[in-house]
Amino acid sequence: MKIICPKNELQNGINIVLKAIPAKTTMPILECIVIEVKEGYIKLIGNDMELGIETIIKGEIIETGTIAISAKIFSDIIRKLPDNDIVIEKDETFTATITCEKSKFSIAGKSADEFPFLPVIEKKEALLLSQFTLKEIIRQTVFSISENESNKIMTGELLEINNNMLRVASLDGHRISIRRIMLKEEYNDCKVIIPGKTLNEVSKILSGEADSEVRIYFTERHILFEFDDTIVLSRLIEGEYYKIDQMLSSDYETKIVMNKKDLLSCIDRATLLIKETEKKPIIINVIDEKLELKVNTSLGSMNEDITIQKEGKDIMIGFNPKFIIEVLRVIEEEEVTIYLTNSKAPCFIRDEEDNYIYLILPVNFNAAAY
Amino acid sequence: MKIICPKNELQNGINIVLKAIPAKTTMPILECIVIEVKEGYIKLIGNDMELGIETIIKGEIIETGTIAISAKIFSDIIRKLPDNDIVIEKDETFTATITCEKSKFSIAGKSADEFPFLPVIEKKEALLLSQFTLKEIIRQTVFSISENESNKIMTGELLEINNNMLRVASLDGHRISIRRIMLKEEYNDCKVIIPGKTLNEVSKILSGEADSEVRIYFTERHILFEFDDTIVLSRLIEGEYYKIDQMLSSDYETKIVMNKKDLLSCIDRATLLIKETEKKPIIINVIDEKLELKVNTSLGSMNEDITIQKEGKDIMIGFNPKFIIEVLRVIEEEEVTIYLTNSKAPCFIRDEEDNYIYLILPVNFNAAAY
Repeated sequence: MKIICPKNELQNGINIVLKAIPAKTTMPILECIVIEVKEGYIKLIGNDMELGIETIIKGEIIETGTIAISAKIFSDIIRKLPDNDIVIEKDETFTATITCEKSKFSIAGKSADEFPFLPVIEKKEALLLSQFTLKEIIRQTVFSISENESNKIMTGELLEINNNMLRVASLDGHRISIRRIMLKEEYNDCKVIIPGKTLNEVSKILSGEADSEVRIYFTERHILFEFDDTIVLSRLIEGEYYKIDQMLSSDYETKIVMNKKDLLSCIDRATLLIKETEKKPIIINVIDEKLELKVNTSLGSMNEDITIQKEGKDIMIGFNPKFIIEVLRVIEEEEVTIYLTNSKAPCFIRDEEDNYIYLILPVNFNAAAY
Repeated sequence: MKIICPKNELQNGINIVLKAIPAKTTMPILECIVIEVKEGYIKLIGNDMELGIETIIKGEIIETGTIAISAKIFSDIIRKLPDNDIVIEKDETFTATITCEKSKFSIAGKSADEFPFLPVIEKKEALLLSQFTLKEIIRQTVFSISENESNKIMTGELLEINNNMLRVASLDGHRISIRRIMLKEEYNDCKVIIPGKTLNEVSKILSGEADSEVRIYFTERHILFEFDDTIVLSRLIEGEYYKIDQMLSSDYETKIVMNKKDLLSCIDRATLLIKETEKKPIIINVIDEKLELKVNTSLGSMNEDITIQKEGKDIMIGFNPKFIIEVLRVIEEEEVTIYLTNSKAPCFIRDEEDNYIYLILPVNFNAAAY
């Protein structure tokens, strides 16, 4: 194997497949990036067994062949080399020689025989989304997956297609995040659970351009993302997702509209007084035409008034501030609308068209302390 | 106590005195910033008992008084408040109320009675340096102090004045860094050891402007830096500094001159192959008109040629790459000159005028492996 690639091609390619290199593994071969050079293409491959990534890079092929190289040392070397053409050559002992200008590295590679190459999956109908849209819907929902591996389904996101409506949802037992997108055409119905980690990594690789497309294919066990010169193949999470429609409600007693940035910076400040261990809530007290935000912890107390437009009753309700902050951070609109019922019932942050729906459960608090 | 200060004044002042707030302490009062408001000034004070900082901030004084407030929570709150005037008020129970626009925080402060206010020191002759010069000489020497507290003197820097010559030096047993500055006038002779931590913190506070001055005063036990609206008072390290002149030599067998950036990026690349635990050296092999840099470790091997101008003998010598990298990073010149004697003798990196002298001890290596 011998190739000549511009440094930036190699580095971009490595940065993409690095997303599928596990931080920890008992299988040393998974710590490697595979360079596969065949007639007509140079491919980099990483695979952590749940998530596999292949990307094609530009370069001159002098000799075909395949080698596995430690991802860490390979990416470190390429990053530090001058910005020029890099020659990578494999000899019969699987030693990789990496040459650039007057610099020459030799590192021990491995045969890729034991490497789990990505299975070839049968591509049926492709769901088409712009890179921008896919990146946005991931960003706007993935924060509320559960990190607790004991409930596997909660670590993933629901992706559901009904006719021309795409819905993506995540929940962690305290909150639900839902994004809905009207598709340009009708598709077959589909309902899968995608690992949150896959979506996080895909999101990092996507350029986010509105005029680049992603083609998404589903099989019984896999989801395949195809974009630019890259494919990302991920296992799906098996099982039945929660019946989220039953948890939603459009009833409310109080509807408040306010400037999103005002509310966000106010809660952000209030959070200073809340220690992780103490788990004190922020109190939202809606009286007349203002929202009073209050916090009272061992570190001190804080209150601040925010101007709102209100419909309905006054209400006092407590929340974990993190849950509200994370929602406000992903909403693009300048104004945000919150629907409340009573101090025990979930609150909803949603837009008029239900393009997004965020449900957050309130927290009990001792009203006398505020 | 009641004051009204613009947010940026408070925040800048806090950022300065934070440098004297200890990360860990058994005396809770040291975790506080003291706000001292007297007729005519508002002063913030921090003191970790080795290093004390006072800074005057602009603001309106409504009522004089003094309070100690947890540095962490105080700086967090000020940072997150809107960019506007901030009112700070103390009541008789030492509760501090911090108000900005519609936001109001109340936090428990403390009396400053137990706080170790900075002693008033007698100011004799002031050493005058520009902020730029002081910041530069610290940056160019402080990296080679020892971090090992068991030898207190090595954790400090020598500052020595002879007539109109200022010399600053640090050493850690493997290397020595020396900077010499010609002063604009003659001063009394002086020789003190300043804690490296003090210099690091002073350097962070200095604006680095060439036309702002720092006045430095010495007493038997203290050094005082005065600049802008700030004073930094530090204890000196007691004891006799090493006789560094005896360790220096201007003899050499080989003199090589090369582009600094070429050498730095080459060593930087070579370092990729060196694990912290392995402690393998980089080998510098000077043959004819080139320098060959070589590394051979469990991760792989690397070699790279650099064009040099040479006077004297060929030589092969090994170094801890970190020591050379740290020197090259602080040298401003495009070209660097290295003086070598033999593979066991220290190398010197210095300019013609001895404005800087860096001594680095070589590392033994097995020549057969390269």
